[in-house]
Amino acid sequence: MPLGEFDLIERFFRRASPRDDVLLGVGDDAALLEVPPGQALVAATDTLVEGRHFLAGAPAESVGHQALAVNLSDLAAMGAEPAWALLSLSLPDADADWLQRFSDGLFAVAGRHGVALVGGDTVRGPRVVTITALGFVPAAAALRRGGARPGDVLYVSGWPGEAAAGLAALRSGALADSSDPLVRRYLFAEPRVALGRALRGRATAAMDVSDGLLGDLGKLCHASAAGARLDLDRLPISAELARRHTRQQSEQFVLCGGDDYELLFALPPAGSEQVEAELAKSFALHRIGVIEAEAGVRCTRGGSLVTVNGGGYDHFA
Amino acid sequence: MPLGEFDLIERFFRRASPRDDVLLGVGDDAALLEVPPGQALVAATDTLVEGRHFLAGAPAESVGHQALAVNLSDLAAMGAEPAWALLSLSLPDADADWLQRFSDGLFAVAGRHGVALVGGDTVRGPRVVTITALGFVPAAAALRRGGARPGDVLYVSGWPGEAAAGLAALRSGALADSSDPLVRRYLFAEPRVALGRALRGRATAAMDVSDGLLGDLGKLCHASAAGARLDLDRLPISAELARRHTRQQSEQFVLCGGDDYELLFALPPAGSEQVEAELAKSFALHRIGVIEAEAGVRCTRGGSLVTVNGGGYDHFA
Repeated sequence: MPLGEFDLIERFFRRASPRDDVLLGVGDDAALLEVPPGQALVAATDTLVEGRHFLAGAPAESVGHQALAVNLSDLAAMGAEPAWALLSLSLPDADADWLQRFSDGLFAVAGRHGVALVGGDTVRGPRVVTITALGFVPAAAALRRGGARPGDVLYVSGWPGEAAAGLAALRSGALADSSDPLVRRYLFAEPRVALGRALRGRATAAMDVSDGLLGDLGKLCHASAAGARLDLDRLPISAELARRHTRQQSEQFVLCGGDDYELLFALPPAGSEQVEAELAKSFALHRIGVIEAEAGVRCTRGGSLVTVNGGGYDHFA
Repeated sequence: MPLGEFDLIERFFRRASPRDDVLLGVGDDAALLEVPPGQALVAATDTLVEGRHFLAGAPAESVGHQALAVNLSDLAAMGAEPAWALLSLSLPDADADWLQRFSDGLFAVAGRHGVALVGGDTVRGPRVVTITALGFVPAAAALRRGGARPGDVLYVSGWPGEAAAGLAALRSGALADSSDPLVRRYLFAEPRVALGRALRGRATAAMDVSDGLLGDLGKLCHASAAGARLDLDRLPISAELARRHTRQQSEQFVLCGGDDYELLFALPPAGSEQVEAELAKSFALHRIGVIEAEAGVRCTRGGSLVTVNGGGYDHFA
């Protein structure tokens, strides 16, 4: 049954706000929001296009999850506390079942991170989802890409590469089963919001891994006017990856995969082991290299420089 | 020549910020922005899909203009001062000429309203443009849809319907000439930002006319738990509309057309003539009716109730 635009917003996207800083949410010309005094506003926007960022026929819950999670990951990379989101949804038709599942996926991840959906736009068109996520952070504590200094120790959180392996499994058609752990990791990766906040005042630079660890490390180095040495022997390779893929394949997933929403960050060398031990109580993290003065990213294996394939993902390359 | 994503952002979308409240703009994981103390944040998002919200082959300058202007119009309707924008751009290819003209159109309207582009996303896909505009307003002064009371006097700004007539001319193919005044009004309508700010503390309710005056008035009435009487004899019909269309056609454009970014608002009856005279020094505005207690919108001509066609535009109807 086709639904009108206004019914659609009412039925699927107007839910009780979990926040009292939403003075006016969905339903007026714009949302009216209260940023806490002394905090800077943090804003990110990301778009998912069907057939490019999610597979045609992908579970709608996952599309809703990913559309918000990819933005919360950007906020996490700034050390921000997420607060609000605006949703733009272009759909070929108003399929109530798809919308129910999409909105359930979106509100599930929103709820876990205390995010209120405060506005948006629904239009008819190709299946394209854009979310703008808003949050806040004390300006001086914000994590930027450009603060890494030679000698800083490089870390990555969690187990990157699992999502890329899950996506590869989905693409190969080998797995119709979305309960597979790697596939689920791709479909429902969780943004590292709590880790981002814990890095405030500790990390000299941070970003989320969205285009592959190797390429994103290059961007962090470029922004910091520095370079890095990446120790391939220290790359975290999850048990599940190792069980199902060769070392070389696994490494490729870790170096070139996005979609895990892991954080790449640098800690100053003095006290880094103590901070690492402190963080490790709550978060999985892996020391993978060091920032150097010389531009570019150099990979080592067994202490020797090696060449590896795999730059970042460039949508227009 | 195909352009890489990062070149594309550098080349077309990173321009000097006109604002000193942008702590971190394009280029990191998210933007970092300073909301002035004591002001609420205002946020709106709108999406334009090629073939639906703009014609395939529309001048790229106009697409860039419209994508931001439609959002600034939402902010104007809240009485907000616009400040920042985030752009999500999905394009089938990185056509440098199109991008140059698109970004020129966007930055032209941004510059006129002091808006800085602070972030975004560029992806390959169907031609879909989403902008989120952010601004601020003292919370107590924000204009809402829901504050109109019986007896309030209804106004619309400017000359609505011209853009719809321009679009109709473009669609009919009768006018290849985009210098036609009605066509230009459609392609480059200016959001009523200054009027919105001037209505702070004066209007009891306001919204921008985006889906047609008649339908949007219905929404304002619904939000205000009231109704309205609309005097068709008072509908503003511009000289250009009157010259080229019958009275009936012109009325239809005024009642059902969007895309002019005019504001519909209500003033309390006491002192409305004085406020109207004050506002009229700077803005074109027309008294078109009155708010009534009875729900629904009633149209009159020569003092008698008449039935007119034309509801709002519903993307999924």
